[in-house]
Amino acid sequence: MLERLLVTGAAGGIGTLLRHKLKPLAKTLRLSDVADLGHAGENEEIVPCDLADRRAVRQLVEGCDGILHLGGISLEKSFDTLLGPNIVGVYNLYEAARACGSPRILFASSNHVTGFHEQNTLLTADAKLRPDGLYGVTKCFGEAMARMYHDKFGQETAIVRIGWCAEEAQDHRKLSIWMSPDDFLSLVTCVFTVSRLGCPVIYGVSNNDTIWWDNSAVSYLGWHPKDNAAKFRDKIDAAMPRPPRDACDAVYQGGKFTIEPIH
Amino acid sequence: MLERLLVTGAAGGIGTLLRHKLKPLAKTLRLSDVADLGHAGENEEIVPCDLADRRAVRQLVEGCDGILHLGGISLEKSFDTLLGPNIVGVYNLYEAARACGSPRILFASSNHVTGFHEQNTLLTADAKLRPDGLYGVTKCFGEAMARMYHDKFGQETAIVRIGWCAEEAQDHRKLSIWMSPDDFLSLVTCVFTVSRLGCPVIYGVSNNDTIWWDNSAVSYLGWHPKDNAAKFRDKIDAAMPRPPRDACDAVYQGGKFTIEPIH
Amino acid sequence: MLERLLVTGAAGGIGTLLRHKLKPLAKTLRLSDVADLGHAGENEEIVPCDLADRRAVRQLVEGCDGILHLGGISLEKSFDTLLGPNIVGVYNLYEAARACGSPRILFASSNHVTGFHEQNTLLTADAKLRPDGLYGVTKCFGEAMARMYHDKFGQETAIVRIGWCAEEAQDHRKLSIWMSPDDFLSLVTCVFTVSRLGCPVIYGVSNNDTIWWDNSAVSYLGWHPKDNAAKFRDKIDAAMPRPPRDACDAVYQGGKFTIEPIH
Amino acid sequence: MLERLLVTGAAGGIGTLLRHKLKPLAKTLRLSDVADLGHAGENEEIVPCDLADRRAVRQLVEGCDGILHLGGISLEKSFDTLLGPNIVGVYNLYEAARACGSPRILFASSNHVTGFHEQNTLLTADAKLRPDGLYGVTKCFGEAMARMYHDKFGQETAIVRIGWCAEEAQDHRKLSIWMSPDDFLSLVTCVFTVSRLGCPVIYGVSNNDTIWWDNSAVSYLGWHPKDNAAKFRDKIDAAMPRPPRDACDAVYQGGKFTIEPIH
Amino acid sequence: MLERLLVTGAAGGIGTLLRHKLKPLAKTLRLSDVADLGHAGENEEIVPCDLADRRAVRQLVEGCDGILHLGGISLEKSFDTLLGPNIVGVYNLYEAARACGSPRILFASSNHVTGFHEQNTLLTADAKLRPDGLYGVTKCFGEAMARMYHDKFGQETAIVRIGWCAEEAQDHRKLSIWMSPDDFLSLVTCVFTVSRLGCPVIYGVSNNDTIWWDNSAVSYLGWHPKDNAAKFRDKIDAAMPRPPRDACDAVYQGGKFTIEPIH
Amino acid sequence: MLERLLVTGAAGGIGTLLRHKLKPLAKTLRLSDVADLGHAGENEEIVPCDLADRRAVRQLVEGCDGILHLGGISLEKSFDTLLGPNIVGVYNLYEAARACGSPRILFASSNHVTGFHEQNTLLTADAKLRPDGLYGVTKCFGEAMARMYHDKFGQETAIVRIGWCAEEAQDHRKLSIWMSPDDFLSLVTCVFTVSRLGCPVIYGVSNNDTIWWDNSAVSYLGWHPKDNAAKFRDKIDAAMPRPPRDACDAVYQGGKFTIEPIH
Repeated sequence: MLERLLVTGAAGGIGTLLRHKLKPLAKTLRLSDVADLGHAGENEEIVPCDLADRRAVRQLVEGCDGILHLGGISLEKSFDTLLGPNIVGVYNLYEAARACGSPRILFASSNHVTGFHEQNTLLTADAKLRPDGLYGVTKCFGEAMARMYHDKFGQETAIVRIGWCAEEAQDHRKLSIWMSPDDFLSLVTCVFTVSRLGCPVIYGVSNNDTIWWDNSAVSYLGWHPKDNAAKFRDKIDAAMPRPPRDACDAVYQGGKFTIEPIH
Repeated sequence: MLERLLVTGAAGGIGTLLRHKLKPLAKTLRLSDVADLGHAGENEEIVPCDLADRRAVRQLVEGCDGILHLGGISLEKSFDTLLGPNIVGVYNLYEAARACGSPRILFASSNHVTGFHEQNTLLTADAKLRPDGLYGVTKCFGEAMARMYHDKFGQETAIVRIGWCAEEAQDHRKLSIWMSPDDFLSLVTCVFTVSRLGCPVIYGVSNNDTIWWDNSAVSYLGWHPKDNAAKFRDKIDAAMPRPPRDACDAVYQGGKFTIEPIH
Repeated sequence: MLERLLVTGAAGGIGTLLRHKLKPLAKTLRLSDVADLGHAGENEEIVPCDLADRRAVRQLVEGCDGILHLGGISLEKSFDTLLGPNIVGVYNLYEAARACGSPRILFASSNHVTGFHEQNTLLTADAKLRPDGLYGVTKCFGEAMARMYHDKFGQETAIVRIGWCAEEAQDHRKLSIWMSPDDFLSLVTCVFTVSRLGCPVIYGVSNNDTIWWDNSAVSYLGWHPKDNAAKFRDKIDAAMPRPPRDACDAVYQGGKFTIEPIH
Repeated sequence: MLERLLVTGAAGGIGTLLRHKLKPLAKTLRLSDVADLGHAGENEEIVPCDLADRRAVRQLVEGCDGILHLGGISLEKSFDTLLGPNIVGVYNLYEAARACGSPRILFASSNHVTGFHEQNTLLTADAKLRPDGLYGVTKCFGEAMARMYHDKFGQETAIVRIGWCAEEAQDHRKLSIWMSPDDFLSLVTCVFTVSRLGCPVIYGVSNNDTIWWDNSAVSYLGWHPKDNAAKFRDKIDAAMPRPPRDACDAVYQGGKFTIEPIH
Repeated sequence: MLERLLVTGAAGGIGTLLRHKLKPLAKTLRLSDVADLGHAGENEEIVPCDLADRRAVRQLVEGCDGILHLGGISLEKSFDTLLGPNIVGVYNLYEAARACGSPRILFASSNHVTGFHEQNTLLTADAKLRPDGLYGVTKCFGEAMARMYHDKFGQETAIVRIGWCAEEAQDHRKLSIWMSPDDFLSLVTCVFTVSRLGCPVIYGVSNNDTIWWDNSAVSYLGWHPKDNAAKFRDKIDAAMPRPPRDACDAVYQGGKFTIEPIH
Repeated sequence: MLERLLVTGAAGGIGTLLRHKLKPLAKTLRLSDVADLGHAGENEEIVPCDLADRRAVRQLVEGCDGILHLGGISLEKSFDTLLGPNIVGVYNLYEAARACGSPRILFASSNHVTGFHEQNTLLTADAKLRPDGLYGVTKCFGEAMARMYHDKFGQETAIVRIGWCAEEAQDHRKLSIWMSPDDFLSLVTCVFTVSRLGCPVIYGVSNNDTIWWDNSAVSYLGWHPKDNAAKFRDKIDAAMPRPPRDACDAVYQGGKFTIEPIH
């Protein structure tokens, strides 16, 4: 059990889903975001912080022995919007961690670092980086930063390429990339309890019927996701047609991100 | 759901097993063979056709939006016997499909395209072609044809290297290659419902205890065979001795096909 | 069912665990060791033997149609201690087998032939040999001997790199390498009943939550271990702290063997 | 030195280039084609033959201890045109060889069996088959036939995927695929003099500056092509513009074959 | 021949070495830097530009049909120093290129994106990214940007992981990573004259005796470096001792960069 | 330059060939063997030693900063003959080296550790061990010992799988495996002068026309063999017939060793 687990981006979608589930992992949860986090619950600390503010990030990390880094932008946005949280912010976080005893980090990367791979390709952790937009490029940057701090300073990071973490899968593509909050929780637990983590790349996805990603390289973690997006298939089929075979949502793992404009 | 699914070779072993099971997949089943197919049932059309007859095949394919190509010879036979249905017939089918809007095809290939691999080798879709007879060579031809029509015209085909599809496994080798009719049905369903198929190679085999083939490259299809030939093991053990270790049935994946004469 | 299964090292840890379980595999169990084996039970023969004694080994193997070779030293010991049983003894065993009709052999190799691989690496049968001590080096010798007798004389051997076979896993590393006696028994059964064995490398480990080894290359054997060391996790967590991340028990697959002195 | 080397397709482009160069390889050259071969020179035999005529092929092969199989169509043609020489003819040749002591065969396959790979991909002998037309599909058939006769009957064949064998490279794509007649001759010599050939796939190409194919898997043959198409670059640059980057001649290894119609 | 080749970072080390050599490649060289470039020579344009200034970069790229992007910081520096030229600057460059018809780009990446690989490891283009400092991380970012613009917009880039480009190799590590200016020039020529470039990763290194990098994946480019750092070995041996085996200069490909502090 | 290079097996075939060539590598050559070495030349020390004598080996190694370990049996012999020099002797040598500051070792392994691979297979350092006799098995043991001392104690060893080192190649198989004494000398020089050696596997073979082994994994050593056995081909062709295709000398890399009896 951790003493104090920092959760950045705690007001975001995933942060909100996990906030209560994470309690058993640490004596104190330090929740941080630029958005409002409401009142601190039991064993919670609320520490607002702009990731681009180096000094603030340094204080944020102080005293934590684990970091769940969900912070930053997780959508395709303009470069100027991404630069602060996803580029500068990642550097700030790793420097702060280095100054504070190198607490283990789970870095929320994204399937969009490999979004231009086709859906009929099974990716392993060694898959070539093929980001599908500026957001994906910033996550490639973050992965490279994590790796460098590992090789240079021994900083451990679980690089988790999250598919789509939500209560439900809402379209056909998400049937393959959905990760239930409970499965993410069990992954977080594995990451913070394994004796030696290293700096692995992990695809964050449930045990869905249709699979694009192979996590066998990290079977040492003992993570066995239990949920399966197949239970949403009928509802999705009823709500919308399957994408035609040449639609980006059927061709590329990154789906519509591959056609988002750059600006 | 398809409008009209063409089933070639519908009077053969597999065709007969699947005829009734396929009904939910299409509004109309168009059943074809050179052998007698009996009376057309509800939602069935019977269209006799010699695959070597180009014009007839063209008419056969017209109006279908899916093709389950079980037709052709599926045993080691003389070259002259195989030439019409398995060589000329495959060309005729693909040309007809091209003229008719390129309906998706499931091509019944065979484990005999890789039959000279040893049984203690796990094959993936990339395995070297090692056909075990003329029949296997014609199936290599068919696979090459499918791939070419995919690259050149976008024709989608599921190349299914069928092990042994029957109600039962009847000898020791078949314990490893058996595919239940229900598992084949679920594969057919996956093939015709996935948004984007491409032109994958799939080993057609149930979830048997002993496995020679690795389908992880097509996990995007979401096919999870459920049956297991292990249930036939005791009956087979009682009925016949295990093959000795140097018998073709114990050495090669293709079993006795590897010692069939050529003529 | 075998006529007579020779079990060497039958008085050792694994031999003792399996002695009664092995009965269904053979009409007669020939149990051998340098240590006391007690009285022969029903269908048992007790044949004391020093593996370094060529003539004795020759007599020991005579009349057996299967060999479970658990004999030899299975701990890091001085070179002079290992030389007789693990080097000379292995040669004696294979020569005896060659003289006696080449009965199939299960050779108890060890995870210590690859003990210097890190725990966050998934090994296949092709993994580079990285022995973690003299014991591991002698097992590399045994594996090479097995392979040579296979290529040269057709001798079949299952090279089983045993993790930790015991009733219980007693520390954190063993949660990943534990093999239950029942799972070992089912492996022995597969090895002696498959029609054609060849000379495969198999990792001897149960179906644990945390996995370092990939046995998919031998899925033709149909071995499906059922037990899972995860059931011991709480007890271990209660009994001792997790090893720190830089301890040999957390870094290397071979654990403490990697720091045993050489003498 | 061979007793009698059969050269099929001897009146074709490559056959004509090699006719005189081949003399040192055999005491007698048996030249065959459906087209006129002129008068037999010294140590030459002229044997006209239609490859689709089984009986004629059987007589053609009789008495030969080596076969250079250049025969058949080597352009994209209609299926009906290709069927006789490239499908039936190949079967006839292999059956005749089997009846006549299995003389070693060099089978002229083609880069068009892999023509849909992109030019910026380095292919090895294991490259996936991606034929670029019916011609390429028939060559896939021939390769499969060669492999089957090897596995089943020990027939040795050098499968040579010829790029473009001519005195000169005449366009930009050919700078990468050109094989000089002298380099082909040295390959033929290696194939017929190595003690054990097996059934290798060899890319038939000179030592050009720009390379798409990797022959290191057959370095046991000792073939070291000496010529380099780079010497033609200036002439080609002067004669025509480089193809634009999206032209089939710049994208695909098969060049214009990829856009040839099927009929 | 290009109409106008933009050279960024033209006042830097490599830019200075190549300035005169590049003349035959383009009718006009547009030289740019934040540092002084002296007077424009014949067929030269001098356009000072700060890469972090989006509007200026847009004007800089206008009218160019090729870009040799040497600009940015090429040493380990503070994050704040690198951010403008190596992160913002790369985005600015690719956006400008997209607005200006996507002229082909040679992006000067660095061996420091893989600097934590050991010197006794042969890297291919697929090697895992292991940057050795912040500089290396920014180059990983640039490579990801190049790849994304390729997949999304068809922008072609040669990603050249430069070893050490200078007139001379001055220490033992550089004997393996040295690239002569002439060899770089021939690479630039290949990159801008090949019909189809794609987005390859190329290691920028001469034909040295000791090699850490394998460029066979880009043999389609026809680049054959001619120089060999071995000619500097005696001079280096005379000037300094070989690094001891555990010095970073002997262990890691990135040499001293691996021990540079982060700030 | 080394202070004192120990050469074991100095009276053997290779030792005799290299004795004078090695002088420039070390101030003193310490030559050792059980056979007579004649008088010590300038800068030579003669130290007779039985490798199986632990104490003697300890004294032999004392004071040396490099070891060329040619000692031991290099032919297929009885197990009892091999046991002392090739098993016990290797252990003695590594223990002595550990006690004496871990001088770098070149261990003369053999192509017979992979002798059961076929001649038409290109082996890399990762090739599966397939020893062709007891001699090969003992060399597998030595390679495992070298690797263990590297992983455990940092001992550096060049594992050189020597083909056939002699003034001349005398039969057809040796055309592929011959290593000239000069090429071996240049390898020895590379091994003892590279800053960091590690524990690589190197195939000891000249730059022959026909090649079975790929040394690209050790290109960091900068070894470029210059000689080519092709110059002996005519003489060999004149002296003896090529082996028939199914002779062990044509099938297996290990040649006749594969049919040597075991005793």
